[in-house]
Amino acid sequence: MKIIKTKIQIFNKSQNAFGPGKADLLVAISHYGSISAAAKSMNMSYKRAWDLVTTMNEVFQQPLVTTQIGGSHGGGATVTPFGQNVLRLYQYAINNSERYIDAQMSDLLKLLN
Amino acid sequence: MKIIKTKIQIFNKSQNAFGPGKADLLVAISHYGSISAAAKSMNMSYKRAWDLVTTMNEVFQQPLVTTQIGGSHGGGATVTPFGQNVLRLYQYAINNSERYIDAQMSDLLKLLN
Repeated sequence: MKIIKTKIQIFNKSQNAFGPGKADLLVAISHYGSISAAAKSMNMSYKRAWDLVTTMNEVFQQPLVTTQIGGSHGGGATVTPFGQNVLRLYQYAINNSERYIDAQMSDLLKLLN
Repeated sequence: MKIIKTKIQIFNKSQNAFGPGKADLLVAISHYGSISAAAKSMNMSYKRAWDLVTTMNEVFQQPLVTTQIGGSHGGGATVTPFGQNVLRLYQYAINNSERYIDAQMSDLLKLLN
């Protein structure tokens, strides 16, 4: 089976601003309503998830994730409307891009066994 | 500065068939006429370069690189017309895809600081 794997990452001032890992994390936070539960569901350390959230919130014009009072592990987390919009724009762009790349690579794929 | 990094890799029967590393290696072999010189120019071990060439030659319908008699390190290497065609198709597809992705991501980039 012939498969094309594409990884698209956005850098801002040489910081890794957004990519597949952060997109998956936003989806999980949105689902679980908590950074720690989201991290656990992705087999990611809480620290790593928190670092990714901090970076996202810094590099964009508005926060993508807000946390509620209740201690670092205790409170809930919410993906803001701004964060949902970032996620939607990214997923839409990725889907279109993958379709486009598949078409672009079709002549090359024909040369594989 | 906002930058989009894209990595596109082609898999055939779960083998990494072609991607940026193999493309760069083909360019270098074409330039130096030798796998060992190409590997050296890329800070890649000779073994690694040879493995990549072997994989490419296996997964495509025709060899991309041929080697001349003269011992494993001694003989020259040539990128075949078939290999040049693979490289050209890949580079063309990558250039188009990167342009397309830039356009697709433009709305998202506007939301960065």
